[in-house]
Amino acid sequence: MRILVANVNTTASMTANIVKSAQVLAATGTQIIGITPRIGTESVEGNFESYLAAIAVMDAVTRYDGPFDAVIQAGYGEHGREGLQELLDVPVVDITEAAASMAMFLGRCYSVVTTLDRTVPLIEDRLLLAGLRSRCASIRASGVAVLELESQPERAIQAIVAQAEQAVTLDHAEVIVLGCGGMADLEGRVRARTGVPVVDGVAAAVAIAESLVRLGLTTSKIRTFAPPRPKRVTGWPLPG
Amino acid sequence: MRILVANVNTTASMTANIVKSAQVLAATGTQIIGITPRIGTESVEGNFESYLAAIAVMDAVTRYDGPFDAVIQAGYGEHGREGLQELLDVPVVDITEAAASMAMFLGRCYSVVTTLDRTVPLIEDRLLLAGLRSRCASIRASGVAVLELESQPERAIQAIVAQAEQAVTLDHAEVIVLGCGGMADLEGRVRARTGVPVVDGVAAAVAIAESLVRLGLTTSKIRTFAPPRPKRVTGWPLPG
Amino acid sequence: MRILVANVNTTASMTANIVKSAQVLAATGTQIIGITPRIGTESVEGNFESYLAAIAVMDAVTRYDGPFDAVIQAGYGEHGREGLQELLDVPVVDITEAAASMAMFLGRCYSVVTTLDRTVPLIEDRLLLAGLRSRCASIRASGVAVLELESQPERAIQAIVAQAEQAVTLDHAEVIVLGCGGMADLEGRVRARTGVPVVDGVAAAVAIAESLVRLGLTTSKIRTFAPPRPKRVTGWPLPG
Amino acid sequence: MRILVANVNTTASMTANIVKSAQVLAATGTQIIGITPRIGTESVEGNFESYLAAIAVMDAVTRYDGPFDAVIQAGYGEHGREGLQELLDVPVVDITEAAASMAMFLGRCYSVVTTLDRTVPLIEDRLLLAGLRSRCASIRASGVAVLELESQPERAIQAIVAQAEQAVTLDHAEVIVLGCGGMADLEGRVRARTGVPVVDGVAAAVAIAESLVRLGLTTSKIRTFAPPRPKRVTGWPLPG
Amino acid sequence: MRILVANVNTTASMTANIVKSAQVLAATGTQIIGITPRIGTESVEGNFESYLAAIAVMDAVTRYDGPFDAVIQAGYGEHGREGLQELLDVPVVDITEAAASMAMFLGRCYSVVTTLDRTVPLIEDRLLLAGLRSRCASIRASGVAVLELESQPERAIQAIVAQAEQAVTLDHAEVIVLGCGGMADLEGRVRARTGVPVVDGVAAAVAIAESLVRLGLTTSKIRTFAPPRPKRVTGWPLPG
Amino acid sequence: MRILVANVNTTASMTANIVKSAQVLAATGTQIIGITPRIGTESVEGNFESYLAAIAVMDAVTRYDGPFDAVIQAGYGEHGREGLQELLDVPVVDITEAAASMAMFLGRCYSVVTTLDRTVPLIEDRLLLAGLRSRCASIRASGVAVLELESQPERAIQAIVAQAEQAVTLDHAEVIVLGCGGMADLEGRVRARTGVPVVDGVAAAVAIAESLVRLGLTTSKIRTFAPPRPKRVTGWPLPG
Repeated sequence: MRILVANVNTTASMTANIVKSAQVLAATGTQIIGITPRIGTESVEGNFESYLAAIAVMDAVTRYDGPFDAVIQAGYGEHGREGLQELLDVPVVDITEAAASMAMFLGRCYSVVTTLDRTVPLIEDRLLLAGLRSRCASIRASGVAVLELESQPERAIQAIVAQAEQAVTLDHAEVIVLGCGGMADLEGRVRARTGVPVVDGVAAAVAIAESLVRLGLTTSKIRTFAPPRPKRVTGWPLPG
Repeated sequence: MRILVANVNTTASMTANIVKSAQVLAATGTQIIGITPRIGTESVEGNFESYLAAIAVMDAVTRYDGPFDAVIQAGYGEHGREGLQELLDVPVVDITEAAASMAMFLGRCYSVVTTLDRTVPLIEDRLLLAGLRSRCASIRASGVAVLELESQPERAIQAIVAQAEQAVTLDHAEVIVLGCGGMADLEGRVRARTGVPVVDGVAAAVAIAESLVRLGLTTSKIRTFAPPRPKRVTGWPLPG
Repeated sequence: MRILVANVNTTASMTANIVKSAQVLAATGTQIIGITPRIGTESVEGNFESYLAAIAVMDAVTRYDGPFDAVIQAGYGEHGREGLQELLDVPVVDITEAAASMAMFLGRCYSVVTTLDRTVPLIEDRLLLAGLRSRCASIRASGVAVLELESQPERAIQAIVAQAEQAVTLDHAEVIVLGCGGMADLEGRVRARTGVPVVDGVAAAVAIAESLVRLGLTTSKIRTFAPPRPKRVTGWPLPG
Repeated sequence: MRILVANVNTTASMTANIVKSAQVLAATGTQIIGITPRIGTESVEGNFESYLAAIAVMDAVTRYDGPFDAVIQAGYGEHGREGLQELLDVPVVDITEAAASMAMFLGRCYSVVTTLDRTVPLIEDRLLLAGLRSRCASIRASGVAVLELESQPERAIQAIVAQAEQAVTLDHAEVIVLGCGGMADLEGRVRARTGVPVVDGVAAAVAIAESLVRLGLTTSKIRTFAPPRPKRVTGWPLPG
Repeated sequence: MRILVANVNTTASMTANIVKSAQVLAATGTQIIGITPRIGTESVEGNFESYLAAIAVMDAVTRYDGPFDAVIQAGYGEHGREGLQELLDVPVVDITEAAASMAMFLGRCYSVVTTLDRTVPLIEDRLLLAGLRSRCASIRASGVAVLELESQPERAIQAIVAQAEQAVTLDHAEVIVLGCGGMADLEGRVRARTGVPVVDGVAAAVAIAESLVRLGLTTSKIRTFAPPRPKRVTGWPLPG
Repeated sequence: MRILVANVNTTASMTANIVKSAQVLAATGTQIIGITPRIGTESVEGNFESYLAAIAVMDAVTRYDGPFDAVIQAGYGEHGREGLQELLDVPVVDITEAAASMAMFLGRCYSVVTTLDRTVPLIEDRLLLAGLRSRCASIRASGVAVLELESQPERAIQAIVAQAEQAVTLDHAEVIVLGCGGMADLEGRVRARTGVPVVDGVAAAVAIAESLVRLGLTTSKIRTFAPPRPKRVTGWPLPG
């Protein structure tokens, strides 16, 4: 089974990290293939960047010319999943939704710990649209920018763990979801400090994607995610 | 006052019609300026096309080099408004939201009559995120494609009026919202047949935009719609 | 265009202030006409007083014998708007709803800062019924009574600004709504201190009313707001 | 124990009927005292009439000079209960809320069968504000005006029973609530035809009021229903 | 009238206390009969224990061989009420629901003060399913275990009063509900300290049960609570 | 990996069928172990039976003396999952929740097609508590009793397919969930007739359970699902 994991930003080292941690957790026989968008921003932290990422991921996935069985969009709270579902016949899994969905099997409610405060509304919106918000105890920002996860790992960990602890203590979260594609490495430390299960979105998405493929399930094409109707298109596929 | 009205599709004749009907309804002294995206699809009827339109509108608006006081995104149920709000200092008004907001002053609940069934979920999502859904009695598809509004006007009118009548009779709608940027001309006929107020999104959006400008109100920049952070961007502005 | 602005309390100086600030913001050609109820309380701060005001406003508006194009009910969180809609053919705009509706175009969520704690439930109810509550971050009471806005302006301003700051900091409000008909003067100071847009209900309502009139839109008469059925009435119109 | 039952309309024969059926169901030792408003309309079927009734009931109750232990507002979906709660120290029970509350002990969900279609929104609002709407399967109008319950009883019964049957069959109601103060006599016939429990609002309200009094419980005065603050009032108490 | 009050735990002294306080509040002519389950745990504080209690109560009630007119399940937030409703023809009242329902007639919103933190989710679930949660301001745990209510009464009272005060001050509760079958004695002290009405679940349930019986109302048998279908059953009735 | 699949009824042939179909879909290396409760009813179709099944499954699982890595409760809409989560350290997956969760990755909304009408409320409740109801388009009963799935397979299929078709056509379902543990065989036929993805709960639950085990995730023990406190228990473990 081949699963395409699409990073939402243009930072190739982050794609590599995501792939590395995803491959470790994948089932035997699953091959994780990372793709990095050709256009967009080095990190995605807001609406403009997220809309650009949506198109960039669709561009990257539709240009990929090897075979694949499922696609994971590895951005937390980002736009675009519905577009990919129209363009593809294989299952598409968003890590925001996969993480929430998995967390709900582990405790009464979960909290998301994410990067900057400005990304919180995007995550809220995605969970609301996905129908996965009612058991979300809180979405907490650590104040750590996406790229600081790599450049200042120790400070990032401290800030994230601090928010996770507050989510458990103040918000009654029973599970912590790591709300960024680049946080996979933190799982163990957050769990050690909070004593609750910690869900990484990429890991959850890989498991969901593998499950869907193995069960022979793919996106319903009957209405919302039917292929685009044939019509005159300008500027797409993106040049280059 | 100069208001930029951004069509979401690439059909210039539709932009012209939107501008024409908007100008009629605008206040004295308001100048309506239409812009048509350089990229995208000739009509927008689904998620992929809507995400592409989101970027196309941001491209078109940020390339426009004249002065303007407000922007209207003239697509019903489309993505992108939040991105424009980050990129601009002037108010941004989405016609889906403007129409719903205005309709709520006129009756207990409203129904939207739109084009194809596949656009209904997009409209539902936008109203849900905007917090304007609880008084929406229904969103009904007429089965008329966007371009058929121009090419087959009489059939389109019949189908739209039929759905409007059902919305009033079966769904208890007290106001009808025309759910497409290109439906402004139908207002009188739908009102005549249903006996209820009919709100056109572009007209509503122009009025809201004029009001915001005159009251000196613009987008809050404190959190969700703060300008994008400075960072490395690839492929944006779009080439060409 | 002539817009009737009905104060909900019997304090004529407050009516005068409301009219004065409304006239400044109105479009050229709009005439603002204030009316003060003959009966009721000098300020409205609770359910009994609000129900009395509802009748008092209907009395005052139906007794007014000049022409008018729209009516604004200038009480924050008060009862009665639905009754006026039944009695009149012109649009009726409640300032609670107008302010919330306008605020939602400016930021992700808004907070209302009002007078006494006991008025908070009335505002909550009105926003809930109007379908405008989901994006309300909080309703905060300043502890300032309505009449103290005039008698102790400096203390009032301090208390209101303090609550507005907390709404932004603690409740994540991105827009502040001034929750009382007599607060229009505070707009500038609250904006200066919080850095977010500030919406005054009367100003918002004037803009909405002007828009509705210019677009030729008025209350749907098909069901909820149909005129009262002919029947035996006792004690109405109120004597005197 | 003395319970004041306030009719919301000015039709004394309807008050008498309400009292008669309430007295039959009351506990031994409970005395039911009916009061008919001095002002208002002969039936209440809409917002204007309901707001007028709110004041009329407050007028009638506060003018009543005998002792009483609780008050029932016997109008279905009417305004005003919150005002009475501020003015009185004894419990106040609205029949809309009492009926819904009682019905929820009898089945998973209930439907209300009421008079005219235009009263449905008022009932919806009251149930929503009371937090009793989530288990309401539907509110169905019989098309029978309030006064026709007395003048055309047989036609009324047929229409009401027909709606009750549809509520059970189509809406999955397991309990029927009779949505008008003047419907008490129909209880047996609706039950016989539908096979489900039928709740009359006045009967439910008497039982709730008796319970509250016997348990020594009365309205909380700490915030929402605190007595009105002392202030200058004009035109109240109503003259005459 | 004979009302069966089923304790959910196996502690007979608690049953006796519940009966004693219920009898005091019951109407003249009402006989309260306590039953203690044969199986289960000495206190119920969690899901496993609550599910066991559900079966234990059904066992105890169906084994009881005297006549009775209604059943009260005297556990706060426990499972099982729906099962009893299927098995019996007389009304079944859960104290969680009765207390909430009664409290809503007394103030805008209520808070529940209960025993251990781990019981809070069970209470939340029960209120949610009952459709009685929207006016619940908070559910607060005192940290007192059920059996400590008897063994350490003074400490229990202090802890419970402290939470009740915080519910009023911080959560805007206007009514306090005592969230445990064994808290009836505390009513007076909590009321004295908070100044708001205090509702004990058993008292509320007795009043509701008496009301239903007197009004001739019982569980709807049309769908959800129809008797179990005849089928092969193993191990039930429970042996012994 | 060893996964215990607990049937909720006492019909061993149904357990065998569930195991057989689950084993086919399980990953290489996963061993499915079926357990049939010692007590309970031959099929579970209502609240009493479901509560009895809850205890019966806890009894069966805690008596099972081999090692296992996860437990699946294979009853659709049944009680008890939360109790198992307290008693066990391994993940517990309910098929109602697993199916809904998986379905949400495949389409905008899903419908459940189940057996008898009386089981619909139980499924609604479970989805509501699980926070998975907002994307449920409908829950439709086929009128087929659980045991008829085996005894009258052809009639059952016709009835189920008919409801699935209506769910797609009338309720806008884009995915069908088979709402009974014994429906796994129908998947292909329902898919063929409706053209939409069909999710079987047991298959979904196996995939989720495998995923949780492989990711090293298990139930949070911090609050809701902490082990029962040590206390005096009577009649448990169940005798025999």
